[in-house]
Amino acid sequence: MNLTFNSQGFQMDGRDAFLVSGEFHYFRVPQADWKRRMELFKEAGGNVIATYVPWLIHEPEEGTILFGDVPNRDLRAFLETAREVGLGVVLRPGPYQYSELINDGLPEWLVRDYPEVLAKNPAGEAFRYSSVSYLHPTFLEKARPYFKAFADVVRDFMGDPVVMLQVDNEATGIHIWFGSFDYNPETMGFGKPQGRYPAYLRHQYGSIAALNAAYGTDYADFCDLPVPDPDGMNRKNPAHARILRDYQNFYYATIGEYLTLLRSWLREDGLEAPICHNAASPDAAAYFVKTAEKMGDGFLLGTDHYYTLNQTWKQNNPTPQHAVRCFVSMETLRLMGMPPAVLEMPGGSPSDTPPILPEDLLAWYRTHVAFGMKGVNYYIYTGGPNFPGTGSTADIYDYNALVRADGSLNATYTAAHDIGNFMASHPWLQRAERKTAVQVGYDWEGLYADEYAPRGGTNEPAHKFLHKGVVHTLLCSRYAPELALLSGELDTAKPLIVPTDRYMAKATQQKLVDFVKAGGKLMLLGPIPAMDEAFMPCTILRDYMGVTASTNPPASDKPVTFENGQKVYQMRVVERLESLPADSELMAADGQTGKPVGIRKEETGTLLWFGLQWDMCLFVQAQTMERLLASLGAKPTVAASNRNLFTSLLAAPDGRQVLFIMNLYSGAQSTEISLFDGDTEKTLGSFDLAPMEVRIVEL
Amino acid sequence: MNLTFNSQGFQMDGRDAFLVSGEFHYFRVPQADWKRRMELFKEAGGNVIATYVPWLIHEPEEGTILFGDVPNRDLRAFLETAREVGLGVVLRPGPYQYSELINDGLPEWLVRDYPEVLAKNPAGEAFRYSSVSYLHPTFLEKARPYFKAFADVVRDFMGDPVVMLQVDNEATGIHIWFGSFDYNPETMGFGKPQGRYPAYLRHQYGSIAALNAAYGTDYADFCDLPVPDPDGMNRKNPAHARILRDYQNFYYATIGEYLTLLRSWLREDGLEAPICHNAASPDAAAYFVKTAEKMGDGFLLGTDHYYTLNQTWKQNNPTPQHAVRCFVSMETLRLMGMPPAVLEMPGGSPSDTPPILPEDLLAWYRTHVAFGMKGVNYYIYTGGPNFPGTGSTADIYDYNALVRADGSLNATYTAAHDIGNFMASHPWLQRAERKTAVQVGYDWEGLYADEYAPRGGTNEPAHKFLHKGVVHTLLCSRYAPELALLSGELDTAKPLIVPTDRYMAKATQQKLVDFVKAGGKLMLLGPIPAMDEAFMPCTILRDYMGVTASTNPPASDKPVTFENGQKVYQMRVVERLESLPADSELMAADGQTGKPVGIRKEETGTLLWFGLQWDMCLFVQAQTMERLLASLGAKPTVAASNRNLFTSLLAAPDGRQVLFIMNLYSGAQSTEISLFDGDTEKTLGSFDLAPMEVRIVEL
Repeated sequence: MNLTFNSQGFQMDGRDAFLVSGEFHYFRVPQADWKRRMELFKEAGGNVIATYVPWLIHEPEEGTILFGDVPNRDLRAFLETAREVGLGVVLRPGPYQYSELINDGLPEWLVRDYPEVLAKNPAGEAFRYSSVSYLHPTFLEKARPYFKAFADVVRDFMGDPVVMLQVDNEATGIHIWFGSFDYNPETMGFGKPQGRYPAYLRHQYGSIAALNAAYGTDYADFCDLPVPDPDGMNRKNPAHARILRDYQNFYYATIGEYLTLLRSWLREDGLEAPICHNAASPDAAAYFVKTAEKMGDGFLLGTDHYYTLNQTWKQNNPTPQHAVRCFVSMETLRLMGMPPAVLEMPGGSPSDTPPILPEDLLAWYRTHVAFGMKGVNYYIYTGGPNFPGTGSTADIYDYNALVRADGSLNATYTAAHDIGNFMASHPWLQRAERKTAVQVGYDWEGLYADEYAPRGGTNEPAHKFLHKGVVHTLLCSRYAPELALLSGELDTAKPLIVPTDRYMAKATQQKLVDFVKAGGKLMLLGPIPAMDEAFMPCTILRDYMGVTASTNPPASDKPVTFENGQKVYQMRVVERLESLPADSELMAADGQTGKPVGIRKEETGTLLWFGLQWDMCLFVQAQTMERLLASLGAKPTVAASNRNLFTSLLAAPDGRQVLFIMNLYSGAQSTEISLFDGDTEKTLGSFDLAPMEVRIVEL
Repeated sequence: MNLTFNSQGFQMDGRDAFLVSGEFHYFRVPQADWKRRMELFKEAGGNVIATYVPWLIHEPEEGTILFGDVPNRDLRAFLETAREVGLGVVLRPGPYQYSELINDGLPEWLVRDYPEVLAKNPAGEAFRYSSVSYLHPTFLEKARPYFKAFADVVRDFMGDPVVMLQVDNEATGIHIWFGSFDYNPETMGFGKPQGRYPAYLRHQYGSIAALNAAYGTDYADFCDLPVPDPDGMNRKNPAHARILRDYQNFYYATIGEYLTLLRSWLREDGLEAPICHNAASPDAAAYFVKTAEKMGDGFLLGTDHYYTLNQTWKQNNPTPQHAVRCFVSMETLRLMGMPPAVLEMPGGSPSDTPPILPEDLLAWYRTHVAFGMKGVNYYIYTGGPNFPGTGSTADIYDYNALVRADGSLNATYTAAHDIGNFMASHPWLQRAERKTAVQVGYDWEGLYADEYAPRGGTNEPAHKFLHKGVVHTLLCSRYAPELALLSGELDTAKPLIVPTDRYMAKATQQKLVDFVKAGGKLMLLGPIPAMDEAFMPCTILRDYMGVTASTNPPASDKPVTFENGQKVYQMRVVERLESLPADSELMAADGQTGKPVGIRKEETGTLLWFGLQWDMCLFVQAQTMERLLASLGAKPTVAASNRNLFTSLLAAPDGRQVLFIMNLYSGAQSTEISLFDGDTEKTLGSFDLAPMEVRIVEL
């Protein structure tokens, strides 16, 4: 089987096909049951299985690498079985696995005998027993022989059945989850002429004078810079914000260096196959933008989309809010040129409670297909007993998976069977696209730059508003959204909504002005940028709009009055103008003062600006967006009379269409649905949905 | 109608009856429809309606108090209608109402013309436009005439139909929600000989020397103390912790002063009726312990138990986790001697999305009856158009309520109708109690004292563990929990589980030792206290247990091994002993080192200690608790084969019983149920529950 992929989707042996993978742990499942469980997975529409190849399991003592001594270490036999059954295999040799193994799947001897490899906080202290510094020379030296031994085992299986290799797992997680980037001095090379951090800054700034100008410092050399400890800095100080943001970008650059190094080992050892990696959460894909650029073609970035793993999660079941996060996550992958793939899709949970229920799973799977998912890996499809002393959640690793540890079918297997066979019978959906009415501008710069929360990698207020305000509102409207990359080519065929922050890259500001001059319809929502990506004054947009004086007013409970006289409640005014700019029309006034909080400027195209943010809660918010988008010439897609039910219409180039209607709530709900031919509304009918039902309507 | 209540429950005209109240806003509902909607509420099992009497609405200009100029200000006519229909009325004249009115229901002129009344942060800055300092003399001076005018209107209706009066609304909320206690200098009197803060400390410490000893300071007088700004203090420093905790207790004491003052106004004006107040959230009831003591008999404290108000809440529907919070909330009220009442129970939401669905509402209502709720007020039962310019969420205040703003029945009305008629036909449940197997010790001291988060009023780790660990686990077990007040009399008839923290009141430590010596069965879970409530060394429990050396070990992913050889995963070791104390039996060993993390000491009674905390996620955690509780002689209550379904068995003194089985998930679930006669298990049968179904089984 030949697995290929491009921005259009996946292909198996050259034909369109969903990637339908299931996590199948040969080191846990009894060998005698491998074949039967593989066949069961094929019956559920599967075409690939995936497995970690845990360093912990295969190198129990340093230098003793075992790949065939006992059946559950016999990777060769596993690959032979998969070949016989006709399933592709994705292998994930780490070094990190997690996989509910102790030490995240690292050997006990490594973390016990080589504490110098541990990641450090800015004070130079290790912050966790099994979080290592990825590029530490000792860590790499110890991992290299394991990768080589792995390659010797799997080389003969490349292409058949091994169709893809994953490097590491959820990179950054072992640091960020525990509260810190990595500041291991040996890895980062603080103060050393060839050290990574000084070298990175030298490359970014060119001269120490340029860095001093940005940082407000007077270092003689890049080696003089101290460890940039966030605790000692004031994030509202632009110079400090630059220092912190540089470290953040540097840290993410080291992730790219690490993953490309792991790939080079695989290539050195003769393993040719596409390489993949999985971002740890729906918000994390953007951390890998530079990594994906560095990896280039043949690299698949996917994300992990759990809705619960234990009772401390925010929800026990799929919800519209979580669906919005996952929608944005998959759109982010699409903007990177990837076929959106969820490389860890819940197939169970390490917790007995809250339970993973078949209704929830099927709704979650269908929601993902609705929003454009092209490939999936169930985590996990099936498990079994752990090697003694290696489990971190159980001795028998059952995971409440689709096929239980004892080989019996879980009630949830039917959900995977249902969606798997739907995907198998609809390969044409690989070339389908969501029918959309409006673009939502997405800015890698904006996601990285953040003067408030420099460690997290996102600008919290703008990022939240993108999700909870803009995208959620559009999904409750008749104008389906797609994300659009502001650093790419902008298409004037559809209106463009840009959730803004107080800074925006200079080039982006100019591009948005040019977009309007070229006839584009632009809606800016939020503060009008006053700084560029380096936190330097930059007023290209403000100047174009003719804005001279404005304020960030305090909170108020008064409604905003729109140009048609309608008052809309529960919108936060985040910027208010002192007066209406010349050549502008008033579109919205602050309820407290009557001053402008929305304007319209016509040139060749149109610019609408509203200094507002909101969390979608009132239908009048969605209706207001519909009215404004109609005034920008947007063409509606699907209208649901019950706005609580999201819809998504997938259309292939040959005209085939499928509509999804999503009730991601615990009660039954009904709706009327209309489709559109241009502006002409055509009633499709009434739909009564059960609790947590996602209905598929073939048109 | 005569409404009375005591710790047993509510009585109407001397007969047991649920309090079934609905929020009915005469200032919004068209007068012509008052009677019909009241009758509809009686049909839904209601016996009382409640309404704010908003200062904002009735005193639009300072000094102009209007109570009958237009139908929607005609409170007299409203009371006459209620009397005619035969419904009791609860009136809530504020001064605060919230009620989705601007300025939280305060008059615009007050917050505009008297900014000195605003609450202040420690720096002396107002932190919000309509958060006032409750005891500020100007605020009280302005509110007093309004209360008097209110009294003049309602005096003739006391007893019939007015059965209860509420003072203020969700007190503390306007401060705490916006990040600060109130530090208004005029109100708190910093530095003034008769100022509240110096006077409070003088009363607490007796002498400045005693305060200096506790604070590590050398002030000459109580007036020398500065404003205690949390930002300038280190919470790990015991002296600072004392300062912060004193301010917290002082702040809560001012709430008691405020509410008793409001009551005195009502009494001065001739209004005799029980007084009530509502804590703002399931976690807030304990903030009012001192207030409730000060108010004495005839005071009803209730709480507000929403599960969603907008998409930023943690869940869209009832969940087991949220049910645990509300269970603890109602148990807290019971421990205060109150009949547990939810004074704001969702009857709608200010948001169109997420929707309030009938299945969710009915499940939520039934869950509350299952856990011992004796009275309820739906927020809201019905609304209508706001006075122009007074709404903060809408012009037409519909609230997606049980009866819509236009008078039509919402689909959710059926849920209220269902539970209302159940409550009306089961008045004997007022005297019923939950059948329980085990006590969980609850300590007001422990909830107030907190060196880590002194503003919030709870000890975060212990409080979380009480909910997510102890109570959640017991609700997944056959041993139903009740809370028990550690400062009260302890009953040795049932085992007592105490979730501990690093400090525990000296008297409580001694009481627990005495409990074991008197034959009690005690299980301590968590760190063994080493300090008392004043953060002074206090090792009564440690000495009794014979513990000499122990550590708080770093996190580990190894399982704990119990005395029966069973390994249990996903338990956090929070204290580990260096060696087994004399006269103790080893009950659990740390997976990392094999050292003791659990011991058993037998005297007349039994003491079990485990230095463990966990979030309930694995059924083996519940099974382990069952095994340990059986060893302490606990008698099982109800066993559900599907531990995801909570149960609650209510039993009246005359032997009548009702069993509740709760599926608070979005998918269908089944279970076998057994009841017990002593230790003898009796199968009740199989139950298949729909998504979000709470089944009532009359036994």
